[in-house]
Amino acid sequence: MRHAPVEVTLIDRRNFHLFQPLLYQVATGSLSPGEIATPLRAVLRRQANARVLLGTVTDVDLNARILHVDPMLAGAGAGIAYDTLVVATGARHAYFGREEWAKHAPGLKSIEDALEIRRRILSAFEAAEIEDDPLLRRAWLTFVVVGAGPTGVELAGQIAEIARDTLRGNFRAMDPSQACVILVEAADRVLLGFPPKLSERAADALRDLGVSVRRECRVVNVEPGAVTIRDVGQAEPVRIATQTIIWAAGVQASSFTARLAEAADVPTDRAGRLLVNPDLTLPGYPEVFAIGDMADLPDTDGRPLPGIAPVAMQQGEHVARTICARLAGRPPAGAFAYKDKGTLATIGRARAVAQIGRLQLWGLPAWIMWLLVHLLYLVGFQNRVLVLLRWSFSFVTRGRGARLITGR
Amino acid sequence: MRHAPVEVTLIDRRNFHLFQPLLYQVATGSLSPGEIATPLRAVLRRQANARVLLGTVTDVDLNARILHVDPMLAGAGAGIAYDTLVVATGARHAYFGREEWAKHAPGLKSIEDALEIRRRILSAFEAAEIEDDPLLRRAWLTFVVVGAGPTGVELAGQIAEIARDTLRGNFRAMDPSQACVILVEAADRVLLGFPPKLSERAADALRDLGVSVRRECRVVNVEPGAVTIRDVGQAEPVRIATQTIIWAAGVQASSFTARLAEAADVPTDRAGRLLVNPDLTLPGYPEVFAIGDMADLPDTDGRPLPGIAPVAMQQGEHVARTICARLAGRPPAGAFAYKDKGTLATIGRARAVAQIGRLQLWGLPAWIMWLLVHLLYLVGFQNRVLVLLRWSFSFVTRGRGARLITGR
Repeated sequence: MRHAPVEVTLIDRRNFHLFQPLLYQVATGSLSPGEIATPLRAVLRRQANARVLLGTVTDVDLNARILHVDPMLAGAGAGIAYDTLVVATGARHAYFGREEWAKHAPGLKSIEDALEIRRRILSAFEAAEIEDDPLLRRAWLTFVVVGAGPTGVELAGQIAEIARDTLRGNFRAMDPSQACVILVEAADRVLLGFPPKLSERAADALRDLGVSVRRECRVVNVEPGAVTIRDVGQAEPVRIATQTIIWAAGVQASSFTARLAEAADVPTDRAGRLLVNPDLTLPGYPEVFAIGDMADLPDTDGRPLPGIAPVAMQQGEHVARTICARLAGRPPAGAFAYKDKGTLATIGRARAVAQIGRLQLWGLPAWIMWLLVHLLYLVGFQNRVLVLLRWSFSFVTRGRGARLITGR
Repeated sequence: MRHAPVEVTLIDRRNFHLFQPLLYQVATGSLSPGEIATPLRAVLRRQANARVLLGTVTDVDLNARILHVDPMLAGAGAGIAYDTLVVATGARHAYFGREEWAKHAPGLKSIEDALEIRRRILSAFEAAEIEDDPLLRRAWLTFVVVGAGPTGVELAGQIAEIARDTLRGNFRAMDPSQACVILVEAADRVLLGFPPKLSERAADALRDLGVSVRRECRVVNVEPGAVTIRDVGQAEPVRIATQTIIWAAGVQASSFTARLAEAADVPTDRAGRLLVNPDLTLPGYPEVFAIGDMADLPDTDGRPLPGIAPVAMQQGEHVARTICARLAGRPPAGAFAYKDKGTLATIGRARAVAQIGRLQLWGLPAWIMWLLVHLLYLVGFQNRVLVLLRWSFSFVTRGRGARLITGR
């Protein structure tokens, strides 16, 4: 849209774009937050038709076409008039109505989440070094990850590598490689978005790293110091003593999504996502678009599109084309069709799975592809070089450059 | 001490070594925390005679030779017996009895401090972009740094460069280069630890960057949204409306220093630093050493040694030599003598001052020396490469790679 005859206002609560696919590497001490985030103003510096506004959108008047923004920092809440509105407020993980579990089992969506999870993982090893009681030490060395989607698989694999490789020789009173990493998944396989064969390969790679994969297994309770799980078909729940529980399950659209659904009288799906028109507009409001994982648009096979970055990026481009066509009086771009260029997930060092069209890869080839794709899509040349360097160091030394316990 | 016949226990509240001299670059968005911090366990991994314990030292029994440690994470408070104790708990800035100013005018000692200051500086520009009232906008664009030692000079210079260079073209409603940076110093010159000529050069460099340097000027009040200052000899105080005040004045030894002074019945100086013996031992306790900026040891000219890293590093080596000599039955190392290899301070891009023996440098030569020395002393090869890269990018683009508003 850089040369389009439009005025763009980008409203965000944060002053940076976050490259979400690498957030788990911040949570596990491989990268620093600054290396996967780029200031919005730096990205849009040369785009004269765009301005950035830091604030929280609190409400919308769809008929008057006014967005209410709480600027957080200065001035009073302001109404911002729009001709066209593009909403992309995203989603968070879901606790299935057990929000009280959140403080014992944090999820991974923001930089603050990542630093909190990093603090918990690294502190657990420190506590195990100090703790004399063998049962209590075992609880500090037990890590439970709930949900075996890409984030859960990545986190479980990374924690296993921290215990086995990164911390080797770092402690005197205990052996960190004795840590126990448990990955809990309600479905019958890990990485449900992938073909079953690749799920099997991923599960094998996790087991290789020493991760205990529990499929068809549900979390029935979370409390300080323990998680209780139950296998499907089993009556008896099992209580696992653990000091570190990480939540990587469920999807829940952002809170503004519900407000928008109510204002437009548009239905939402079970995850709270808006059921949008095929051209990504809000039913009844052709000037309002909803994209990314806050929107539910069925694929050709009737399943909602996955909540991943490539979908959101292609949707953004589609909306831009639609707007430009409207302004030029050309026929609009029409229905959005997702072009699936492939899916990737990584488990650890030289361990990944990849599906590109009908091609299925795993092991080293998939991992190299994963590295290249993520470097390519990372925003900002500087960040690409820094991340490449960090990864090279980690590959050679099996170390992690950002193993800091901060906060609190 | 790697091959000395000793058992070393390193007790720290943090799990990393922080390279304090570059902390201001985290506070001003040039570097990420992980790039100037190195995990203690990684540093000591191959040193089999050393162990690391994460905890807070709460008390000491000098006669029983037992240190009381609160492990924070696990287990009960424990007593740790020692044969030799080396205390290096450092110092913080001082508010001269006005601790209530701290929350409006944070100082810079920890990573958390740096991220909070970064948040305040960057948020102020965001607020100025939103604010319509010209007087309120002026307050958001006014930055006051209190204290013109190396940290205050560095911070003031960096904020001026952010306003003039980094944020150029980033905003639409206001011009960030209109920001006003005020450096307040009670003495009659900046960088009091340097020769007067270099103080003059540093003040010139600050003025070049647009910093308003107010010497012989004291802060008489700090409140939300304003700081009140008074020039020496003037009756009338001046109230400056500002939303960002940073404190870089005063020195106060750590709280454990007071406890140690009381236990040993050893006097402290005005800043709470222990008056130690010439060999850095505690009077009456030859097995207890105090080093770094918690100790007050006069130089040959009778002035206390400056609270800078080279002094602390040389003192650490001196204590190690003393301990090894005692164990080997050799005559101990005796009195500590500081070997002044030079002092450096930087103001901004190609602007620095340096004193090496009788040689005085400023401008580009001093700046290049500053860069080399800081890269050399930064702990960890990976961090050196990353920081060099960040600096190269910043030099070419005048950008800052870690301009994130996080926290809260």
